[in-house]
Amino acid sequence: MLGDCLERVRKTVPLVHNITNYVTVNDVANVLLACGGSPIMSDEPEDVEDITSICGGLNVNIGTLNQSSIKAMFLAGKKANELGHKVLLDPVGAGASKLRTETAVRLMDEVKFTVIRGNISEIKTLALGSGTTKGVDADMADAVTEETLDQAVSFVKSFAKLTGSIVAVTGAIDLVSDSEKCFVIRNGRPEMGKITGTGCQLSGLMTAFLVANDGNELEAAAGAVCTMGLAGEIGWANMKEGDGNSTYRNRIIDAIYNMDKATLDKGAKYEVR
Amino acid sequence: MLGDCLERVRKTVPLVHNITNYVTVNDVANVLLACGGSPIMSDEPEDVEDITSICGGLNVNIGTLNQSSIKAMFLAGKKANELGHKVLLDPVGAGASKLRTETAVRLMDEVKFTVIRGNISEIKTLALGSGTTKGVDADMADAVTEETLDQAVSFVKSFAKLTGSIVAVTGAIDLVSDSEKCFVIRNGRPEMGKITGTGCQLSGLMTAFLVANDGNELEAAAGAVCTMGLAGEIGWANMKEGDGNSTYRNRIIDAIYNMDKATLDKGAKYEVR
Amino acid sequence: MLGDCLERVRKTVPLVHNITNYVTVNDVANVLLACGGSPIMSDEPEDVEDITSICGGLNVNIGTLNQSSIKAMFLAGKKANELGHKVLLDPVGAGASKLRTETAVRLMDEVKFTVIRGNISEIKTLALGSGTTKGVDADMADAVTEETLDQAVSFVKSFAKLTGSIVAVTGAIDLVSDSEKCFVIRNGRPEMGKITGTGCQLSGLMTAFLVANDGNELEAAAGAVCTMGLAGEIGWANMKEGDGNSTYRNRIIDAIYNMDKATLDKGAKYEVR
Repeated sequence: MLGDCLERVRKTVPLVHNITNYVTVNDVANVLLACGGSPIMSDEPEDVEDITSICGGLNVNIGTLNQSSIKAMFLAGKKANELGHKVLLDPVGAGASKLRTETAVRLMDEVKFTVIRGNISEIKTLALGSGTTKGVDADMADAVTEETLDQAVSFVKSFAKLTGSIVAVTGAIDLVSDSEKCFVIRNGRPEMGKITGTGCQLSGLMTAFLVANDGNELEAAAGAVCTMGLAGEIGWANMKEGDGNSTYRNRIIDAIYNMDKATLDKGAKYEVR
Repeated sequence: MLGDCLERVRKTVPLVHNITNYVTVNDVANVLLACGGSPIMSDEPEDVEDITSICGGLNVNIGTLNQSSIKAMFLAGKKANELGHKVLLDPVGAGASKLRTETAVRLMDEVKFTVIRGNISEIKTLALGSGTTKGVDADMADAVTEETLDQAVSFVKSFAKLTGSIVAVTGAIDLVSDSEKCFVIRNGRPEMGKITGTGCQLSGLMTAFLVANDGNELEAAAGAVCTMGLAGEIGWANMKEGDGNSTYRNRIIDAIYNMDKATLDKGAKYEVR
Repeated sequence: MLGDCLERVRKTVPLVHNITNYVTVNDVANVLLACGGSPIMSDEPEDVEDITSICGGLNVNIGTLNQSSIKAMFLAGKKANELGHKVLLDPVGAGASKLRTETAVRLMDEVKFTVIRGNISEIKTLALGSGTTKGVDADMADAVTEETLDQAVSFVKSFAKLTGSIVAVTGAIDLVSDSEKCFVIRNGRPEMGKITGTGCQLSGLMTAFLVANDGNELEAAAGAVCTMGLAGEIGWANMKEGDGNSTYRNRIIDAIYNMDKATLDKGAKYEVR
């Protein structure tokens, strides 16, 4: 089933507008191309409404926000809402600074997001005002583990209900919920945390999945998470002696490029709660 | 002959000032180093006139333009013109937004470009105000094919005549013309479109070729196109099972790094019309 | 001994705030992760004081400075000083433009840097107002060679004394001095100059080493230089036919990822003068 979501991306080549950080932007673009989408980047307020209008989806990532790109996020987000486009929020570093937290909260107030995707500390910050964000990584104290899973599923469902968005919390165990159902996903490798921007890459990928799978957003979001995690597993299996995080980055994107429906359906590890 | 153009780059190490987008900038820098050039990036209005003054060429790419970098493009372009430097325009996404189209048109009015290089939709937009740009990629309807080749050659020659610039239209078949002659180039691989920024990389590379081959600009521009395309072919031949677009990116830059005169002269596939 | 410095990075996972250029930022982030640190990037004036407060060190790189990021550098630098954090200056292109030279000089006036790290032309510009910077690369005329070594060591010691900072000059021979002692380091490969940003990467890496080795800053800085240079040697040894500068970039970061205390202690080539 999730394999069909990927196949629809490859068939429809969704154009995705990214307002994203300059750290990981190149990888985001290559991941979008790898999965069959088409990326365009623009963060100038005077440019973004035109650009988002020709796209099917908008990926908003606050990883290196500035005064100008913040304006662009609001303009593009509202225009995308008007046009009924899919819109994703990646609140990078929410909880790490006042500006990041407030920008994410204001964005949630003024823009309707199809999906909010972050690590557990970022999402807790947005939900409770109390995550203990460690820079751009989740704090261990917040981590979703088998022990805290029931509680975490219920938290994610509630936050999805409150926001009216699909909420995707990614980490060792990933949770994707639309408030009714919650996908609990166990793909991925811990070594993915040693590559900058696997979260940002997933946000780009997920936006393409959302655009290509209209009316089937929950499965699309879960399919994107499984694709990224499974690519992390396949990429790791292709590592050779002497390889490290830089080669691993390439291997993961390569694995997305080569992923097909059958591989994804066979390799996706999830349950629905 | 084209191999000599490459050799002159390696011998003279041309310093190239790039005002380019933050998506593909790292690859542009590594491609410039791979071919024997030396890159410097600066897009701050107060900085660009000094920086461009110590360089031999300027590469202007509007891929992620903003109010500040637009100012910098005009300042640097005019200063480079004053100093008789080579200047290249890469109108990324012209046709996709009003700001991009207008900025490219205004740049062509106020700055004299040695070369204008883009995909067919971007160039049609600048020439006719009517390309059907799909994001940053050319629309299939505009594509240069064997069937539309005569018409395309004549279009490119006319636009070169009108602008007084060499015009380079890249795609499945590449055209490079100074209005009198048109190189028709058939190097490259379709899979290059699955890597972000091969066009941006070519623009950087081409600027280095222009600087190193003063008085021989048409051959220099064609030589850069053949180098990039042939590197795409060599890179592809070096791909192994499990490799994808991320590894392919590395393989192409590696192939440029290892390209020599003999390889280029043997592998370049072109005719002059 | 230097191996212990690396081991302390891996044990303590120092969080490093980077205000750096958009050309090489992705590699800086991956190098920080490779050595065991954790990177965060922010260059918005309203954001940087919060972000730097949660970090242990600040890496200031002026490679693509702009009016907004310059403000951020001063705000973050002063805040980091207040908090007793390690702060590193990488004066990319000082000598190549008035804005770069003046910004670096003003930063040295208003912010106390633990380390100033650059190529010999940049450092000479800051010390004497007379380096002959060739873009972002050192001019050959300035190069530290066996013939000019005594003079260079004495210059670096003097500049360290004058500034009260550790001064690290990197090139074919690297010098790291706190004014009393000077590490003369002979790790590395000339081919590293064919990759964009190995200097920027070293600055990120060094900041992590400084944070993790409080009270032992000179050894930490020297250890970072040896780690980077040795990774360049190991990465080069892992190159295969057809590989070029793009694969070499990955190989170097991979080598940092796999570096351990024993490898570094065995491979570090230095003397103390």
